[in-house]
Amino acid sequence: MLSAYNIIAKKRDGLELSKEEIKWFLDGLIKGSVMDYQMSALLMAIYLQGMTTAETAALTDCMLYSGEVLDFTDDTIIDKHSTGGVGDKTSFILAPIAAACGVKVPMIAGRGLGHTGGTVDKIEAVKGFKTDLTLKQFRKQLEEKSVVLIGQTGQIAPADKRLYALRDVTATIESIPLITASIMSKKLAEGARGIVMDIKYGNGAFMKKKSQAKALAKSIRETGLRFNRNMMTVLSDMNQPLGFAIGNSLEIIECVEVLKGKGPKDLIDLSIHLAGGMIHIAGLAKTLDAGKAKARKVLKNGEALKKFKELIELQDGDSSFIDNYKELPIAKNILKVTAPAAGYLKSVDNTQLGLHCVSLGGGRMKKEDKIDFGVGFYFYKKIGNKIKKNDVLAEIYYNDNQKELAADIAEKMLTRDIKFSKTAPKVIPLMDDTKVSWRK
Amino acid sequence: MLSAYNIIAKKRDGLELSKEEIKWFLDGLIKGSVMDYQMSALLMAIYLQGMTTAETAALTDCMLYSGEVLDFTDDTIIDKHSTGGVGDKTSFILAPIAAACGVKVPMIAGRGLGHTGGTVDKIEAVKGFKTDLTLKQFRKQLEEKSVVLIGQTGQIAPADKRLYALRDVTATIESIPLITASIMSKKLAEGARGIVMDIKYGNGAFMKKKSQAKALAKSIRETGLRFNRNMMTVLSDMNQPLGFAIGNSLEIIECVEVLKGKGPKDLIDLSIHLAGGMIHIAGLAKTLDAGKAKARKVLKNGEALKKFKELIELQDGDSSFIDNYKELPIAKNILKVTAPAAGYLKSVDNTQLGLHCVSLGGGRMKKEDKIDFGVGFYFYKKIGNKIKKNDVLAEIYYNDNQKELAADIAEKMLTRDIKFSKTAPKVIPLMDDTKVSWRK
Repeated sequence: MLSAYNIIAKKRDGLELSKEEIKWFLDGLIKGSVMDYQMSALLMAIYLQGMTTAETAALTDCMLYSGEVLDFTDDTIIDKHSTGGVGDKTSFILAPIAAACGVKVPMIAGRGLGHTGGTVDKIEAVKGFKTDLTLKQFRKQLEEKSVVLIGQTGQIAPADKRLYALRDVTATIESIPLITASIMSKKLAEGARGIVMDIKYGNGAFMKKKSQAKALAKSIRETGLRFNRNMMTVLSDMNQPLGFAIGNSLEIIECVEVLKGKGPKDLIDLSIHLAGGMIHIAGLAKTLDAGKAKARKVLKNGEALKKFKELIELQDGDSSFIDNYKELPIAKNILKVTAPAAGYLKSVDNTQLGLHCVSLGGGRMKKEDKIDFGVGFYFYKKIGNKIKKNDVLAEIYYNDNQKELAADIAEKMLTRDIKFSKTAPKVIPLMDDTKVSWRK
Repeated sequence: MLSAYNIIAKKRDGLELSKEEIKWFLDGLIKGSVMDYQMSALLMAIYLQGMTTAETAALTDCMLYSGEVLDFTDDTIIDKHSTGGVGDKTSFILAPIAAACGVKVPMIAGRGLGHTGGTVDKIEAVKGFKTDLTLKQFRKQLEEKSVVLIGQTGQIAPADKRLYALRDVTATIESIPLITASIMSKKLAEGARGIVMDIKYGNGAFMKKKSQAKALAKSIRETGLRFNRNMMTVLSDMNQPLGFAIGNSLEIIECVEVLKGKGPKDLIDLSIHLAGGMIHIAGLAKTLDAGKAKARKVLKNGEALKKFKELIELQDGDSSFIDNYKELPIAKNILKVTAPAAGYLKSVDNTQLGLHCVSLGGGRMKKEDKIDFGVGFYFYKKIGNKIKKNDVLAEIYYNDNQKELAADIAEKMLTRDIKFSKTAPKVIPLMDDTKVSWRK
């Protein structure tokens, strides 16, 4: 007979749980016959003993079917997901690029918590933009306009929400099978036929080590294949911010710059890579390189920017900021942080950089915190850059009452978060280990 | 800053917790600032990552001081604890023996749950016997009369009760540091200056493997030493019942038989060994063997029996059963189980034997179950015994309405629980690995 005790004991002892056992446990949690303290014991056992691909798929399945599941037959519906990082804003670039190339992009995005920002928070810097469409509206806009962006809804994978809240207070977040099931249950529920996964690693990512990121990528690909999805995974470096801008309005502006053919190289490169992957696994380009070439084309000819403007307007956003950035909320004061001496940028504490934005009010430490869209900073230098004395390293955007805070941030950046070296340091490639898996 | 999350994460990662961290967590649980689901995650992390001796001692300390702590300076106050098994009734024999030899024996005993019986349940078969003395009465009787036996009270180590309830539903019972802290917090709170620990292993014990029992013995000795106690640990075989009797009244009768100089050899041997150890670590005999010789003497000359009678009467029990067993509740019907063929007794499923007594009503599956003192059985054969066809293996004591149940038990004993062999099987020694540690 199934019992919570026996199921916990089995995983505790490192044995494989059956799909029936996993389902019984999760269903019990939802119904109230399995208690939170039993779930957290099982979560810790999973954290420490791991799960097989079959177990991870079964857990994903339970969480997926705990809520609404959108079902599409259109193979060009492809989503992208990132495990999150500092300055990670590729969604606003790759979604219009991919959509302009014929991909349908169904985005259900999250809010920020801790040192990383959230896609939904960023787009809400745009006046009027609605992220609370119904699933029916979501479906309609996707089918008719190829791109849609909404916030997470309680209708999608509610069991994940329940589990995540427990993991968050029981130190069981960083578990590959649990992360896989959490991400994949939500992504699969959106109905995407293929998923491009940007897995961040480094000191500003949840996965500190590349080996962990690699293991997560494998787990996600395998789970995706079990659900009959085309998958692409990429490992990308999160030991420094992506692009220059950190902060909600500043990041939106940076994305528009990229869509106008300008902007930071790393952000362009990663966005093109991911969009190229989406085009490729949608079956719209024979190779990844061909997909990337298509992506570059629509970026260059302005079609992607047009698609971005369309997205903003479709969801009631005021698109005038595209031509006039001052339409976005932006803090009035700027503090320049300059290099105290010449040298090379050797390393940055990327999590601390992310937290500086939070401390200005641009992110949340608690779910209830309100976001100030206008604050944040540009961090202009990349690891390996040669720096001259008095070069501007960063510009902090702060409000009138935050003068001391901005000065404190500048000091911490210089004395704690940034390291310089006299010789050129080793530079980690931005992207690595791209892998594509096709469903049978 | 201390946080539940960080403490769980630390143990999850296999690091050693400080005494401060353990105390903060336990105190938080009691106060309500640490939640049950966090405690159970920590318990699972402890189960899988273990604890050092220092951590185990710190956990013991927190649980110990969560309630009343009796403090004695008399070095002759020695308690014995057993990890529990089928037919384990040594307390009723060794306590009067040790007391008759000058040891003071402060027993705070438990009730039975699952396949093992409980000391308190067994003594409650005696009409009138009170196990709910106050701690003041407990102390007075110990000091004046050298022996006292009460049930567990909420005043002693209440944190253990809280933790045990959680462990019981989260598959975190069988953890050496958690078992150590649970046992030792209660034993230390009683104020004993020395503790003799009978650690059972085998298919009727919580510890199935001897290696686990050995590890627990070591953990308990080390923890005892940290609290400045003299310690003796013994590993004893629980692959078959101890003595012949299983069931509350039947076990009390068997103890009286031993105190009268009769009874089963294994029960006598273990009782003498443990009592000898108590006398020895009380400083009343230079060697264990000398302690055992003293124990044998008071058993032979009737002083132990006298002390037993005194204990019964001190706690308002009707002692007439000592001379007339019919004064105890005993089921009226007896079913003999006989050997179907000649051979040797090779093995018994000792847990199943214990559960037969529970199914008759002589034990509990749930805490609320009521005990029928009169049911149970004698299991007369020991592993290695040569058996002739039709030898009586067991006698089942059952009530009028239990005829079918008794027949079913008899059948299960013969077809499932007992294995015979044609040649003499290997016999495990009853006791092994006796170790004495003296405080500095």
